Amino acid sequence: MKYLGVFMLILLLYTTSLAQKNIEIQSPSTRIKLGLALASNGSITYRVSINNITILRPSSLGFKLAKPAVLLNRFAITSTDSTEHLDTWQPVWGETHSITNHYKEIKLHLKAVPSNILLDIIFRVFNDGVGFRYEFPEQTNFKHFIVADELTQFNLSANNKTFWIPGDYDTNEYLYNTTLFTGIKALAAANKEKDIAVKSIIGDNAVQTPLMMKTPEGIYLNIHEAALVNYPVMHLLADTPQLGLTSHLTPDAVGNKAYLQTPAKTPWRTLVITEKATDVLASKMILNLNEPSKIEHTDWIKPQKFIGMWWEMHVGKATWEKSSGKHGANTENVKKYIDFAANNGFDGVLVEGWNEGWEDWFGNWKEEVFDFVTPYADYNIDALLAYAKDKGVKLIMHHETSGSATNYERRIDRAFQYMNDKGINTVKTGYVGKIIPRGEHHDSQWMVNHYNRVAEKAIEYKIMLEAHESARPTGLHRTYPNWLANEAARGNEFNNAPTLGLTPEHETILPFTRLMGGPMDYTPGFFRMQLNQFEPSRKTRVRTTLAKQLALYVTMYSPLQMAGDLPENFSRYPDAFQFIKDVPVDWDDTKVLDAEPGDYIAIARKQKGKESWFVGAITDENAREITVHFDFLPKNQQYQAIIYRDADNANWESNPEAYVIQKVELNSTSVLALKLAKGGGCAISIVKL
Amino acid sequence: MKYLGVFMLILLLYTTSLAQKNIEIQSPSTRIKLGLALASNGSITYRVSINNITILRPSSLGFKLAKPAVLLNRFAITSTDSTEHLDTWQPVWGETHSITNHYKEIKLHLKAVPSNILLDIIFRVFNDGVGFRYEFPEQTNFKHFIVADELTQFNLSANNKTFWIPGDYDTNEYLYNTTLFTGIKALAAANKEKDIAVKSIIGDNAVQTPLMMKTPEGIYLNIHEAALVNYPVMHLLADTPQLGLTSHLTPDAVGNKAYLQTPAKTPWRTLVITEKATDVLASKMILNLNEPSKIEHTDWIKPQKFIGMWWEMHVGKATWEKSSGKHGANTENVKKYIDFAANNGFDGVLVEGWNEGWEDWFGNWKEEVFDFVTPYADYNIDALLAYAKDKGVKLIMHHETSGSATNYERRIDRAFQYMNDKGINTVKTGYVGKIIPRGEHHDSQWMVNHYNRVAEKAIEYKIMLEAHESARPTGLHRTYPNWLANEAARGNEFNNAPTLGLTPEHETILPFTRLMGGPMDYTPGFFRMQLNQFEPSRKTRVRTTLAKQLALYVTMYSPLQMAGDLPENFSRYPDAFQFIKDVPVDWDDTKVLDAEPGDYIAIARKQKGKESWFVGAITDENAREITVHFDFLPKNQQYQAIIYRDADNANWESNPEAYVIQKVELNSTSVLALKLAKGGGCAISIVKL
Repeated sequence: MKYLGVFMLILLLYTTSLAQKNIEIQSPSTRIKLGLALASNGSITYRVSINNITILRPSSLGFKLAKPAVLLNRFAITSTDSTEHLDTWQPVWGETHSITNHYKEIKLHLKAVPSNILLDIIFRVFNDGVGFRYEFPEQTNFKHFIVADELTQFNLSANNKTFWIPGDYDTNEYLYNTTLFTGIKALAAANKEKDIAVKSIIGDNAVQTPLMMKTPEGIYLNIHEAALVNYPVMHLLADTPQLGLTSHLTPDAVGNKAYLQTPAKTPWRTLVITEKATDVLASKMILNLNEPSKIEHTDWIKPQKFIGMWWEMHVGKATWEKSSGKHGANTENVKKYIDFAANNGFDGVLVEGWNEGWEDWFGNWKEEVFDFVTPYADYNIDALLAYAKDKGVKLIMHHETSGSATNYERRIDRAFQYMNDKGINTVKTGYVGKIIPRGEHHDSQWMVNHYNRVAEKAIEYKIMLEAHESARPTGLHRTYPNWLANEAARGNEFNNAPTLGLTPEHETILPFTRLMGGPMDYTPGFFRMQLNQFEPSRKTRVRTTLAKQLALYVTMYSPLQMAGDLPENFSRYPDAFQFIKDVPVDWDDTKVLDAEPGDYIAIARKQKGKESWFVGAITDENAREITVHFDFLPKNQQYQAIIYRDADNANWESNPEAYVIQKVELNSTSVLALKLAKGGGCAISIVKL
Repeated sequence: MKYLGVFMLILLLYTTSLAQKNIEIQSPSTRIKLGLALASNGSITYRVSINNITILRPSSLGFKLAKPAVLLNRFAITSTDSTEHLDTWQPVWGETHSITNHYKEIKLHLKAVPSNILLDIIFRVFNDGVGFRYEFPEQTNFKHFIVADELTQFNLSANNKTFWIPGDYDTNEYLYNTTLFTGIKALAAANKEKDIAVKSIIGDNAVQTPLMMKTPEGIYLNIHEAALVNYPVMHLLADTPQLGLTSHLTPDAVGNKAYLQTPAKTPWRTLVITEKATDVLASKMILNLNEPSKIEHTDWIKPQKFIGMWWEMHVGKATWEKSSGKHGANTENVKKYIDFAANNGFDGVLVEGWNEGWEDWFGNWKEEVFDFVTPYADYNIDALLAYAKDKGVKLIMHHETSGSATNYERRIDRAFQYMNDKGINTVKTGYVGKIIPRGEHHDSQWMVNHYNRVAEKAIEYKIMLEAHESARPTGLHRTYPNWLANEAARGNEFNNAPTLGLTPEHETILPFTRLMGGPMDYTPGFFRMQLNQFEPSRKTRVRTTLAKQLALYVTMYSPLQMAGDLPENFSRYPDAFQFIKDVPVDWDDTKVLDAEPGDYIAIARKQKGKESWFVGAITDENAREITVHFDFLPKNQQYQAIIYRDADNANWESNPEAYVIQKVELNSTSVLALKLAKGGGCAISIVKL
């Protein structure tokens, strides 16, 4: 990423050593106001409003440490620094060509009472929200310390509408619940889930971030974190009677939360606050709170569209393991996928089940499962690499760790060297299973460091990365642009899960929740909604229309997009498949046209370096009409649009695969009413004439 | 190691499918008898006698599993197999040129009631003891399992005299206690110790193995284990009123003991049982119970005698860290050590504190301390390597991990490659500190696997290894002959510890306890008994005579022997230092001449490939005379002996450095009365005339 120095503005507004009792700073737009107060008992609180509507009531800040065993919740303010910052930077890939970073900042320099431990809290107020973090500066008598708890409050102003999943140290693959804040009942929701491999439910009042809410006044509030580095994942404990939330950090094997050494800083606690739902989706605040790219030369990093044979395993056509007799990753089968990728312009083919170990990989907390360098005997990797290279297709590596991070760490250099030797430059990692080191969690500090270490190690070998079953992202793809995507939520694959599956509203919530932290490998593109073709007894199915599956390529942003279904299913609808072939994975610009969490999303995006635009619109279980004004197009320019829409009689439940393809001419004055079926969607490709 | 096939004998005596109620097998000598009984309730017990003196009363066997949650303590015998085995093998290095392995074996094939889990127990009865292990064979409905507890009993026949240290999951550096069995009070003993970095005391009744005992009848019994692979360290819980001991396995971070997968086997539980104390020291049973060498070509493995600068740090002359301004491992200082090594015929120089990280290495459970490849700026490693090579001396690498095994594992390939690149072929590892993965212990299964992984990884890079602060050894140096030694006990360095230090009897106990499992890097050779030369306020001191320090090179067997003291201290007594220069570290033969645990030890050893012999005799706090018959020498051959003995007025307390060197002629008919001072010893080198 490059800084556009000409737009950079850093103003040191003032520094004071006075112990101010009340401080207020405003967003550059002045609409968001952050108030800070030092109470007479030494507690520090912050409060937030937008347009004079209170969003967070006074909420206190602090820590409980395990070593030294002190409480850091009474402070004296020794001084404050204030700055304003404005710059624009260009991501290596993304939704927009450039990103503006504009905020006002105040840094409170605090001394804890009575320990005299120095602690700074930095607040940044953006036009679309607030971020704050704790920093422990270097100091004489306080160096190594262990965090027992972070005591950050988020005291709500009202009984907000809340989109939540149960707090869990090991999984974020829950279905979303939509209730009033007082309706949060995490245990019941978590216990309903039968298809999640490893659950560590925190309690009835614990929920995960990104936590999306809407106030009675119609203000949108999203609570998450940015730049999760050397710290555990933050969950939130809801005090529903008091309308309060408190940070709850993921513990390690012995119950500690974080081992830190000064100078140390926590991740940013982020509050995206907007008056329009579309502005939540457009927010770049979390990215802006992350550090710039650590990679100097990024020419080896490429957004990708890929296919893979994973769905064969999910629907029962094949298996990961060889011993079953229907091993998916055999040489002949992979050749067919390479052919399909080459014939349809895909960049890569992901091959799962290529390596030995799948016979005994899951469910036993086993440490030494895979070595990541030993192909199955029926997988001729060298022949396939030559075959793929000849056809201009890349193979994508798969490193399932079965949760055994220690095993992966001790083998990763050889595994990545193997990829270098074979000319494979993208890896999908996986963490299905209980974590080893035993007692650690997917969300604990050690594992957070592990994911980040893998990203850094991948840079060393110029490898692009996507991680499945990891902690959910926090914008670190700005810092590590080789880290293209994560799963870290309930993906499209859950359509195949035997019990709850997915709901038609699921994809209208994910961009407001999971995707706030970064791209998701959602694996859209299902063309066969009944999934019983290989196992007739199977009753699960996809709960969208086919047109909605197309629209997801626009509404679910990722630089790494899979065409999830089987090639033979795509072949059933080649005209609809054309949209997946056409849709790009990198963008110059994005316009969030209309949105409401849990209901609908419509987004237009301009292809990177091209004049083409793509529109995706999706709805929940309700049919609806979304009116799109094409005023985002340049004036006085005619475009050819191909509209992939639900057939008039389509709906997710009884007629999901019925679609209509229409061609129309458009320009910047055009207005279209997109009719979305129940569980439906609409995708449009727009090419300059 | 090579098998001498001509002596190999394996007899399948009989196999039966009858459910025998009582089985007895005898040692080849018939003196040791093992009885096995199946009670009507299904419990299996074993009992042991020697020469018809009961050593272990009926003691039950079994497991408690955590997953599946079943108790395995009621069985049906499905069949038994009996064999006799005799072979002789040659160790790569050792106390003797060849080792005979002769035992009778019975294997009980059991089916647990009511779980139907199959479990075999194998007993081997040697002329000097009994070994037994559990094996879980492959079976249809039982594959992965988690051990909650091993229920192995050792029910004593009497209130034995017992040499014990407190059970502790993280350290074996305790001072030995000598009491009757009923006098075991582990908590008080453990709490006395102020100089041990990390203690995890198990309880008042827990003791460690090797546990040395002597029955009222004068029979010696040593309980330990052999071949500790993929299993936690076994401690023992003493039921003192009932004279019983029960296995207690070291737990992991979540309280489990071992994660196993069939076919699985436990380490051997070993009972060395002899009528003479000398036969305990001569026993090769534990080695015989380990697997043969995994290394085909062993020409790169060499026993070594070395010096190092560690003692400078211990006595306050220098520091490991550079920031103190008196960094020991600086280029000029290391050159002096290289000179000293070259001038005195040492193979290597161990350099501790050579690498960055020591400023902040200890006590904070910090994961990323050392990278093992970055020398301090004042340590010119390449210049020193060239200098050392020119003088025919090797540098020995030091990898202190500060207990962070995860950090070491992820860096070990590069660290070992660095050693290969630099031409360094021996490494001393260290584990000072609380273990990471946090919640694991030095003695838990994960760490046991770690130590063994490091040994295997070292083979890959042709590196010789010695580990400090590891779990105590169990004879694995047969399997990994590149693993030359461990610390894993209270070493000579504790003379410098501020509180308890060492006792004059300490080295008369170690060979009966810690050394039963394998060689120890005890770092003998102190020539200055007052340790206050650099810090006058220091009151600690060495509690032996100088002559005893020489004798330790013979009595404390190791293929890796350090001359522990500072070169300037050796220079004070060059004539005595000659013994350290002369004494070898590899042997063709060993004769344990006389011994009593806690009192005295006298051993003669024949130099590997030479006609020279060396004798070491040590005593505890009591002066004594030990009569040595030199009938181990070949007949009709005259030898020149140089005797390094305590001066007549020497004693450890008031006159420790007074010694006398005498030359005498000896032959196989000679008899000498060696007079040992209080805390004294005697060393003799014997060269053919």
